[in-house]
Amino acid sequence: MQEKIGNKNKDNRPIGIFDSGFGGLTVMAAIKKALPMESLIYFGDTAHIPYGSKSRNMVVKYSKEIIDFLIKHKVKLVVIACNTASAFALSILRRTSPVPVIDVIEPGSKAAVYASKNKKIGVIGTEGTISSKSYPRKINKIFKCAKVYQQVCPLLVPLIEEGWNSGEIIDSIVKKYLKPILNRQIDTLILGCTHYPLLKKALEKNIGNNIALIDSAKATAREVKDTLMKSHLFANIKSKKFLKFYVSDNPKKFQIIGSRFFSGEILNVKKVKMIN
Amino acid sequence: MQEKIGNKNKDNRPIGIFDSGFGGLTVMAAIKKALPMESLIYFGDTAHIPYGSKSRNMVVKYSKEIIDFLIKHKVKLVVIACNTASAFALSILRRTSPVPVIDVIEPGSKAAVYASKNKKIGVIGTEGTISSKSYPRKINKIFKCAKVYQQVCPLLVPLIEEGWNSGEIIDSIVKKYLKPILNRQIDTLILGCTHYPLLKKALEKNIGNNIALIDSAKATAREVKDTLMKSHLFANIKSKKFLKFYVSDNPKKFQIIGSRFFSGEILNVKKVKMIN
Repeated sequence: MQEKIGNKNKDNRPIGIFDSGFGGLTVMAAIKKALPMESLIYFGDTAHIPYGSKSRNMVVKYSKEIIDFLIKHKVKLVVIACNTASAFALSILRRTSPVPVIDVIEPGSKAAVYASKNKKIGVIGTEGTISSKSYPRKINKIFKCAKVYQQVCPLLVPLIEEGWNSGEIIDSIVKKYLKPILNRQIDTLILGCTHYPLLKKALEKNIGNNIALIDSAKATAREVKDTLMKSHLFANIKSKKFLKFYVSDNPKKFQIIGSRFFSGEILNVKKVKMIN
Repeated sequence: MQEKIGNKNKDNRPIGIFDSGFGGLTVMAAIKKALPMESLIYFGDTAHIPYGSKSRNMVVKYSKEIIDFLIKHKVKLVVIACNTASAFALSILRRTSPVPVIDVIEPGSKAAVYASKNKKIGVIGTEGTISSKSYPRKINKIFKCAKVYQQVCPLLVPLIEEGWNSGEIIDSIVKKYLKPILNRQIDTLILGCTHYPLLKKALEKNIGNNIALIDSAKATAREVKDTLMKSHLFANIKSKKFLKFYVSDNPKKFQIIGSRFFSGEILNVKKVKMIN
């Protein structure tokens, strides 16, 4: 699919994006907005949702199987649109993948270090992401003296999936979770889970205006754009682009709940049988 | 292991109990209390937790694999200590199992019909359990004219696993979930998920004293006792009994979180590799 137009290579192969379920659709939406000429294939591992409470071995096993599926579908780049899979599987997927692999933790960390003035950065996420310490490690690699304060928030994903994104209940829960890290005078907060962009308003309401919120979906879309540019992998603007959705369970549910995350209608969801 | 003492058969084989994770431990605790002389084997399918949001096919596949595992471990009776697996897999497991299979929905339904005076019965549970309509079907089989009002409560399981069993947040969430069914003048409420016994106090506080709460763990333990009695399958009171725990992922986490559900220490959790 790679062609030459003038001096520029063009590559119309799709970008592959995967997550344990719906959350990665916020990343897909950001990529679609940043790169409207690109074809995108999304894989939601709904049979194994949620990754956030699973062990490293299980998440690595599932991620390997999904990336094999995407490679077979001739993607030119893979986005791990899930913080837990990024935390547990990035290095092994990068070692074995024939195409570039982009995660959500690296772009989110970079954006946070860039945004923070006092270099006191908060991170909220699932159990898997937080206990992996991937954000503190990555942030301290970029800026050694940064202080990183983490908070595990297991209830936010089910709350978002229930559609309770605003109101008294979410306000109380957000306040309870954030109190310990707000006490540390952070000036930047990383939304360390691809579900959390849907809670942006509730978070802004409850943490005030002085804290910068880092939406890793947007940061990841920027990273994808950069990588395509550097590798001359942009699609031909005139080519016919497509969006495809695959899941490992419950395509109908994915279609309904997913549309909230994707901020748009989701059509033609296909179910794929997983080996593991 | 079957032996004759006087005129009575005694059977020292263990009872097998399974669930997607921790919830079934409330059933195991009730069985242990009702039948202290019995050996028990528990299987928590933590690699696939939660079943509540999965499709029928996936839950049936996992349940079959687990019952095979238990049968290989020479159990004399199997308890499906999970409402979703009961809803989706009971009939197929009963057809194929060489030993009696007891679920949680049948005993809970019987207990509710017995407890209710006005025969207006509420059921709360996960998405899988509620959408299967297993409780209304079972209740109406026992008492045709009973009215059953269901409410899906997806947030209660993660709230319980987070340990937020009391306080303002759980009160608000319980009130929000229960309002529609309380408006129907129910006099009996089935806790249609094996996690929910841990919320009994919060439920009692928020629904008042006029509604009978049906804890299916207790009802199931009574059913197990009845079945063992009728089939002459009680263990010899002098035999050496044991408790064994198997999981498909994260044995350490199971040991920690599980103890809250089991109301006692959990030792020697072994990890088992699943095929599916």
